[in-house]
Amino acid sequence: MRYRIELDYIGTAYGGWQIQPNVRTVQGELASAINRLTGEAVTVTGSGRTDAGVHALKQTAHFDLEKSFDPYKLVGGLNHFLPGDIRVFGAFEAPPDFHARFGCTGKTYVYAMYRKPERAILSDRAWAVAEDIDVAKMRAAAKSFVGEKDFASFMAGGSDTRTTVRNVTQAEVEEKNGIIRFTVSANGFLYNMVRIMTKVLESVGVGALAADSIAEIIERKDRAAVKGIAPAHGLYLVDQVYGEV
Amino acid sequence: MRYRIELDYIGTAYGGWQIQPNVRTVQGELASAINRLTGEAVTVTGSGRTDAGVHALKQTAHFDLEKSFDPYKLVGGLNHFLPGDIRVFGAFEAPPDFHARFGCTGKTYVYAMYRKPERAILSDRAWAVAEDIDVAKMRAAAKSFVGEKDFASFMAGGSDTRTTVRNVTQAEVEEKNGIIRFTVSANGFLYNMVRIMTKVLESVGVGALAADSIAEIIERKDRAAVKGIAPAHGLYLVDQVYGEV
Repeated sequence: MRYRIELDYIGTAYGGWQIQPNVRTVQGELASAINRLTGEAVTVTGSGRTDAGVHALKQTAHFDLEKSFDPYKLVGGLNHFLPGDIRVFGAFEAPPDFHARFGCTGKTYVYAMYRKPERAILSDRAWAVAEDIDVAKMRAAAKSFVGEKDFASFMAGGSDTRTTVRNVTQAEVEEKNGIIRFTVSANGFLYNMVRIMTKVLESVGVGALAADSIAEIIERKDRAAVKGIAPAHGLYLVDQVYGEV
Repeated sequence: MRYRIELDYIGTAYGGWQIQPNVRTVQGELASAINRLTGEAVTVTGSGRTDAGVHALKQTAHFDLEKSFDPYKLVGGLNHFLPGDIRVFGAFEAPPDFHARFGCTGKTYVYAMYRKPERAILSDRAWAVAEDIDVAKMRAAAKSFVGEKDFASFMAGGSDTRTTVRNVTQAEVEEKNGIIRFTVSANGFLYNMVRIMTKVLESVGVGALAADSIAEIIERKDRAAVKGIAPAHGLYLVDQVYGEV
């Protein structure tokens, strides 16, 4: 039987999603918890990888069990064996052709920033940016990301993908309760794409980059067109869409 | 010269505020950072202690330096030597008779709860309570705490104090953005007082205790009148008042 689970995690203590030797990873912790609960050795497939330090408010994953298991008991049972910074909040029987990665037709990320001075409560949770950052400029600039475009300038080197074209359906910046949130949805994301986009928006917000230069950066199709990258600890994977878009 | 500083911290990694041997404490980290920055060995006095796992959104402290130091540079310099989960956000020259503990005439705490299922994002930050907890009942019950009363039933054993009478000036419960906050202000708090109050409110919220039994519990003046205590990780010291009330 195939199972789909939904979970959240704080990535601070982990070397990212993907299993690696000698590093605590979210995928590794899940596989271990499933093994301890069911006795079965499984491979857990997520909607995608997240890097070290990146969080997820919602990550979707699937795995197969030989013996069937009450999904409700799966939630409590897995949480019993998982550390507190990884929590499963939903478990469902899934059709045999459900695939957390290949079936995912859309994803949303949020990148969280706040104005300096630094606060302990937000350490490892959001990026402390300049106190006088101009959010209206960032909001206007973010619109340039929307549409089906070649985002090659927003892909970290060393990555390998069939195409660098992605369809960004939402790119919004809002400030609320002291947090500046960049919310971006697309049919898929290139490696480090959101963190590089965020760095561009931050550069616009502090006046280091003109708002209208984003179109130019996209046009260059070259990672060298953007200086720097936003730190991992402000990034949250927040939603996944399955099925027809 | 005496300095007053304001800081926040996440208590998860610390054995509380107060310096102890072989345990990382907030007071210890501060003294060490001041020593590394200024070369002086100082005693840091806080507005009060917080237990292991308890957080502060604002804690006030003072210390004396032989050589004077630009307060603005004190903020950046201390943060350079402090871990990310302790951040100084204000530093000021203070009159020689300013005392962070004895001069403190009022304090506010917030206790944070949320409805199950558990979420990783709130692990070590808020208490996961029953999904169907009745916040209206908790709000009504909290009013019984307000006033100058003997709170002996709300003091953990083994503590020593001149009087168990405290003047509670605010005790409110509200639910917002998925967080249930119990906010309580008083001229001072007994040991574990807020966590024991919170446990009583939670018991009322889940129907294990009648709302009108709080007056009775206060009347008994006996810690045995309350079963249990809310966990440390939901508690935040959020404000201090100095001077005339």
